[in-house]
Amino acid sequence: MSDIIKPRVLKGFRDFLPGSEIERADLSEKLVMAFRQSGFVPIDTPVLEYAEILLGKAGGETEKQVYRFTDHGGRDVAMRFDLTVPLARFMAEHYDELELPFRRYHIAKVWRGENTQRGRYREFTQCDFDIIGVDSASADFDIVSTIVLAMKTLGVAGATVKINHRGIFNRFLSIIGAETKSADTLRIVDKLAKIGKEETGRLLEQVLGNTAKDELMEFIREDEAFGPTLERITSLAGGSNPDSDRIEQIFAMASAAGQDACLKLAPSITRGLDYYTGVVFETFLDKLPDIGSICSGGRYNNLASLYTKQDLPGVGASVGLDRLLAALDTLNHKAKPHGYTQLLVTMADSRLAPQYQAAAFLARNAGIACEVYPEARKLPLQYAYAEKKGASFALIRGIEENDRNIWLLRKLSSRTMQEYSSLEDAINAVKMG
Amino acid sequence: MSDIIKPRVLKGFRDFLPGSEIERADLSEKLVMAFRQSGFVPIDTPVLEYAEILLGKAGGETEKQVYRFTDHGGRDVAMRFDLTVPLARFMAEHYDELELPFRRYHIAKVWRGENTQRGRYREFTQCDFDIIGVDSASADFDIVSTIVLAMKTLGVAGATVKINHRGIFNRFLSIIGAETKSADTLRIVDKLAKIGKEETGRLLEQVLGNTAKDELMEFIREDEAFGPTLERITSLAGGSNPDSDRIEQIFAMASAAGQDACLKLAPSITRGLDYYTGVVFETFLDKLPDIGSICSGGRYNNLASLYTKQDLPGVGASVGLDRLLAALDTLNHKAKPHGYTQLLVTMADSRLAPQYQAAAFLARNAGIACEVYPEARKLPLQYAYAEKKGASFALIRGIEENDRNIWLLRKLSSRTMQEYSSLEDAINAVKMG
Repeated sequence: MSDIIKPRVLKGFRDFLPGSEIERADLSEKLVMAFRQSGFVPIDTPVLEYAEILLGKAGGETEKQVYRFTDHGGRDVAMRFDLTVPLARFMAEHYDELELPFRRYHIAKVWRGENTQRGRYREFTQCDFDIIGVDSASADFDIVSTIVLAMKTLGVAGATVKINHRGIFNRFLSIIGAETKSADTLRIVDKLAKIGKEETGRLLEQVLGNTAKDELMEFIREDEAFGPTLERITSLAGGSNPDSDRIEQIFAMASAAGQDACLKLAPSITRGLDYYTGVVFETFLDKLPDIGSICSGGRYNNLASLYTKQDLPGVGASVGLDRLLAALDTLNHKAKPHGYTQLLVTMADSRLAPQYQAAAFLARNAGIACEVYPEARKLPLQYAYAEKKGASFALIRGIEENDRNIWLLRKLSSRTMQEYSSLEDAINAVKMG
Repeated sequence: MSDIIKPRVLKGFRDFLPGSEIERADLSEKLVMAFRQSGFVPIDTPVLEYAEILLGKAGGETEKQVYRFTDHGGRDVAMRFDLTVPLARFMAEHYDELELPFRRYHIAKVWRGENTQRGRYREFTQCDFDIIGVDSASADFDIVSTIVLAMKTLGVAGATVKINHRGIFNRFLSIIGAETKSADTLRIVDKLAKIGKEETGRLLEQVLGNTAKDELMEFIREDEAFGPTLERITSLAGGSNPDSDRIEQIFAMASAAGQDACLKLAPSITRGLDYYTGVVFETFLDKLPDIGSICSGGRYNNLASLYTKQDLPGVGASVGLDRLLAALDTLNHKAKPHGYTQLLVTMADSRLAPQYQAAAFLARNAGIACEVYPEARKLPLQYAYAEKKGASFALIRGIEENDRNIWLLRKLSSRTMQEYSSLEDAINAVKMG
C-alpha cells in the first residue's frame, strides 16, 4: 500500500459524476439553445492570461483570491476569475474583426481561491451573455427577453425579471441629500430581499437619518404594478428624463411582446457593483423566491476602458448555474439520469458478440442510443446495469434463441419479455417505446 | 494612452472568435451525439489538482511542461496536462459509486508549456472516450464502432480505422531476437507513415541488423486484406494465441455489423506509449492521409494502479480536435458561419421598437432564430450585419409600412423584397426558407 497515492481533489474543487454532469450538460445545452435563438454567438478565451490584464481593474479582494503564478517563461500569469474581464480584453483586441453590435455568450469555468467555509467553490462555471457596442432600450430588452426564453426552454414556469435603473435611483439619492452615501445606501438596499424591510429600515436610518430613511423606504416600495411604480419613482426622482424614458420603452416592448407579466419594476434592485451605469436586473423564480436571483446583470457603459480608448457600451447578464441547478432539482423532483442509453444489447453468450454488435449498429441507424454489454455475465446483472443507465429495453439472444432464430426484448420497467422473429421488429418496438 | 494596458494573450494561447468557436462547438456537439448514441456518459474533473497526483506517473518531459505552482494554502498544485491521469484518479476515488463497465467521454481543455515554435499550443482541447472495467473484444470493438459512428455523424465519408495488437508485435520481436530493443523498434515503426518505407528500413537496420530488419519489414507489410494479413502476422509471431484471437473476434464483429470496409489490420501501428498493452488504433481519412491520425488509442490494463489496488482494465481513444477541424475545413470548403441568426428584424424607426420585439417573439415561438437590430441605423448597414451573421432574411417595417399596416421581407441572398399584409405570413415565409 505504501506506494499508492491517495486519490483526492483539492478543497473547493469538485468531480462531476455522470448523474450531475448529465444534468449540467442538459442545462447548458438548453441555455445555449435560447442564446442562439436570440442571435447570440459563442466565443472562447484562454484560462491563463497576463496577471496585469486580468487584475488591472480588480480591487484588493479579487487580487487576494486569484490563482496567480510565474510561468516557465518568467511571465506573471493568472487564471481567469470571471468572464467579464476577458471579454473586455477580447473586445479591445479584436475590435476590428468583430461585427458590432456584438452579442456573445460564454459558458466556462472560472477560479477564485475563496473561503470554502461559506459554501463557495474555488472552481465554478459562469454563464454570461452580453450585447456590446450599443446603448439602446431594445438591447436592454433583448437581455430580458433572452432570460424569459431561457426559462421557457428550461421548462420553468413563473420566472420574474425584476428591473430598475441606476440613474433614477441616483437622482433620487441626490434629492434626499444622500448622494455622498450612495455606496453604503446601495449596499443596504441591495439586501432588502435577504434581510427584510425592518432590518433594511434600521440600517438605512443609521446611514441616512430618519427622514431620508422614510423617503427611501417609500421609494423602494414594490407593492404596485409597473406603471404606477414608474410614475411614483419618476416623480420622487424629480420627473421624467432619459432614465425613466428608458424604463418606459422597455416596458412598452415587453407589453407588445406579451411578456409584461414576466417583468416587474423593483426600485430596490441596485446590484452591488459600481460597474453598472443603467438598467439593472435580477431574476426570481415565483415558486422559489428564497434561493435569490438566478440571473442578474445590467448595463455598463465602459466595458473595456482599461484596454482601449474605443467607447464600448454594453448590457448583459450572468446565469447562476449552481443555483439554477439546485432550483431545477427542487422543482422537478426527478431522479438524476445516469445515462443516455435507450437499449442495452445484453451479452448472453460471447460467441454471439458479432450478432450483438450488428444489432447495435441497426438500432443506432434507427436513431436509438444503444450499447452492447461488453462481456457475458448473468442477465439479471446486465438488466440492473441497463436500469442504472436509464435504458428502457434490453435485447436478449442466447444460444437457444439463436437456434430458434428469435430475439427477446425485455421492457425493463414492467419486467415483461416479448419474442420477435425479426431483429427489425424488435428495434421498431424499442422506437415505439 | 499611458494608462491603457495593451490587450494581448499569452504565447501559445488562443482566442476563439465566433467563426472558429461555432465550428468547434458544432464539432463537439456532433462527437457528443455519437458518444451518447453509443452509451457513453460525460464526467468532469477539476482543472487544478495536487501536483503529486497529476505527476505521479509522469516522466521528465511532462514534468517540465506542466503548469505547477503553490496555491494560497501552500499546496503544491498543477493544471491538468491530459484527461487520462484525472480519469485514473477519478476511477480510483469513485470506484464504489460508479456502474462498471464505465463508458465515459470527456471534452475539456488541458495545458502544457510546450515549445510553441513547433506549432504547438499551450492550451488545447482534448476529447477522450474510454470503457473501463472490462477486458473484452466487444469493448475493443465498441471503440472502433464509436469512431465510425462519429465520422458518419460528422458527415466524413471514407475514414479507416487501422488496428493492431501490441501482443502479436511483441511475440514477433521475441522470435526475431529483438525483444530487448523493443522500445527503439516501436518508436521507429510508429513513424512509418510519416517517414516512408525506405527511411524506416534504414533506421531499423541500424537497430536490428539486416536480417531482423528484413523480417520486420515483411511483418509490417500492409498490402493485403485483413484476413491474409492476420494469417501472416500470426504465423510470423509463432501461431495463434489470445492476442490474435482478439483481433479475429474484433474483425468478426466488424464484418457482422457491415463495417469491415472501415477496418484495416496494420501491423506497423504500435503507438509510441508504453501505456498500451493490447489493441492499438489510429484513424485516417482516405482523402487526407497526410494529416495523420485523427483519432488514436488502444487498450491499457493498468489505468489507476498509482491510486488503487483495484484492477482497472480499459480501452479508449482520443480525437485530435484541432487536426480534425483542419481536415473538415479542407474537405468541406465552406465559409465559416458567424452566427445562428436566421431572421434579422431591422430597426427602421426606434419608435416602432415594441412592434419589432413583438415580431421577434412570434418568430422565436415559430422556432426561428431571430434578433432585433438594436438601434435605428441605415438599412443597408443592417442588411450587411444580417448577412455577416449568416441570416437568410430581414424583416422591415418603417413608418410608411406601419401606416399601410404591412411588413416587408427581404431575402438577403437574392436581394428581393416581398410585401406581407400579416406578420404571421411573413414569418411563415421565413420558415419555408
